[in-house]
Amino acid sequence: MIEKKSEALCFGGRQQVWTHKSEATATDMTFGLYLPPQAEEGPVPVLVFLSGLTCTHENVITKAGAQHYCAEHGIALLAPDTSPRGLDLPGEHDDYDFGSGAGFYLNATQEPWDAHYHMARYVRGELLDAAEMAAPGLDMDRVSITGHSMGGHGALTLALRHPDRFKSVSAFAPICAPSEVPWGEKAFSRYLGEDRKTWRRYDACALIEDGARVPEILVDQGLADNFLDEQLRPERLEEACRDTGITLTVRRQAGYDHSYYFISTFIGDHIRWAAERLKA
Amino acid sequence: MIEKKSEALCFGGRQQVWTHKSEATATDMTFGLYLPPQAEEGPVPVLVFLSGLTCTHENVITKAGAQHYCAEHGIALLAPDTSPRGLDLPGEHDDYDFGSGAGFYLNATQEPWDAHYHMARYVRGELLDAAEMAAPGLDMDRVSITGHSMGGHGALTLALRHPDRFKSVSAFAPICAPSEVPWGEKAFSRYLGEDRKTWRRYDACALIEDGARVPEILVDQGLADNFLDEQLRPERLEEACRDTGITLTVRRQAGYDHSYYFISTFIGDHIRWAAERLKA
Repeated sequence: MIEKKSEALCFGGRQQVWTHKSEATATDMTFGLYLPPQAEEGPVPVLVFLSGLTCTHENVITKAGAQHYCAEHGIALLAPDTSPRGLDLPGEHDDYDFGSGAGFYLNATQEPWDAHYHMARYVRGELLDAAEMAAPGLDMDRVSITGHSMGGHGALTLALRHPDRFKSVSAFAPICAPSEVPWGEKAFSRYLGEDRKTWRRYDACALIEDGARVPEILVDQGLADNFLDEQLRPERLEEACRDTGITLTVRRQAGYDHSYYFISTFIGDHIRWAAERLKA
Repeated sequence: MIEKKSEALCFGGRQQVWTHKSEATATDMTFGLYLPPQAEEGPVPVLVFLSGLTCTHENVITKAGAQHYCAEHGIALLAPDTSPRGLDLPGEHDDYDFGSGAGFYLNATQEPWDAHYHMARYVRGELLDAAEMAAPGLDMDRVSITGHSMGGHGALTLALRHPDRFKSVSAFAPICAPSEVPWGEKAFSRYLGEDRKTWRRYDACALIEDGARVPEILVDQGLADNFLDEQLRPERLEEACRDTGITLTVRRQAGYDHSYYFISTFIGDHIRWAAERLKA
């Protein structure tokens, strides 16, 4: 069951919004899908964009200016929501950095979150299946992933855990070592419990330390980002990648903050970077 | 009195939001100002973007992707609000198409609107003065204007009434003949009263019929726009311009609707078009 909620022409392609029933979250889920004009003629590759705290599927499709570059490079953009919706679990809507809008792209093991908060499983499985059902013009053998902040964490960890599924990975201002920073400690302890060993599969630095590998990673990080030192910590990712064979490029962008003004400035580079790595 | 509310780097330039006291509206007014990187080195020209019904200063600066093109062409984007704010006049907030968010870029003559709703005077005067105060790097002798829907109407009428002030004019899906369509009839009768003669100076087609001239006008209009036949009526602008010497280009864009997906697709063309006409 999948239903198209809206469609608008944009840069010659179709910006769509879809809703479908998810087994992983046991809720309806909504995602944005931009099909570039090239999708009319044959299969196009797909870039998944995972959004940050407080966002829905809508932020990146309305604020990033991504469609311009997707149309240029013939790549689809798939933008899921950041958590299950329509629930009212105890405390679910109290904080901006936990619960609704803050699924952290993991599979929760602690009550009551374990009944619904399976965003890792959702993104890797049902989201891609639903997109394929929505648009036969997608080449699901050529899928890359990127994301912003909490979504950058999601992109890094999903790519590291499933390097065959995602052909490339990049991130904007990602939470690089969530186990070691306040956002991650708060979310992981409630979603996953107090045993920190279970946190390692949702922490990009820990995954790399434990042997997970991707060939290369591109990161853009604004130096005027308020969350840089306390929450994001790209230097931890640089440490983790050292001597691993992972080619990590961290571009420190002077003067840029954590907002969509930052994302919109550099998303063209990330789309081109993914498109080059997704060439048939 | 002018105060910077926020600033973020975007495409190497500065996206700012300012608030200042306006005499025209007898309220505080807020505007967005994007300064391209070229403004650091010398005066840059200015494109005023007037937004449509329900919008604030924020929509175009977050959803249009305009900064990319402004940085490319070295032009500033100045985005005012669509009405006075912070008031509570009788009925002011009841309708999406009248009162707050719906100032129609005119000078009201009817009570109680005449005390505040002077958006024509505001845009032409204080807005430009405030921008100059905010950013000495603007060349206020080189100013063009554009806008969307109600803001397209505002751009056309302000340019026709002040052809020396605005060096070029273009519009996205403008209300071309407001005196003849429901949106305009509702707004004009309440802001200006029932004497339709007084409406003519705020109606692009009537202004042209009464002798107002600009050298050329560029209009983009989506053919899947829900408001096209009832409210926008570009064919009326074509009729009005016939045999006047005004070079009107109406680009009818198949499949495009009234949204920012439409604006973002074509705003690069409008910024380039203005920039070419603003060359020093």
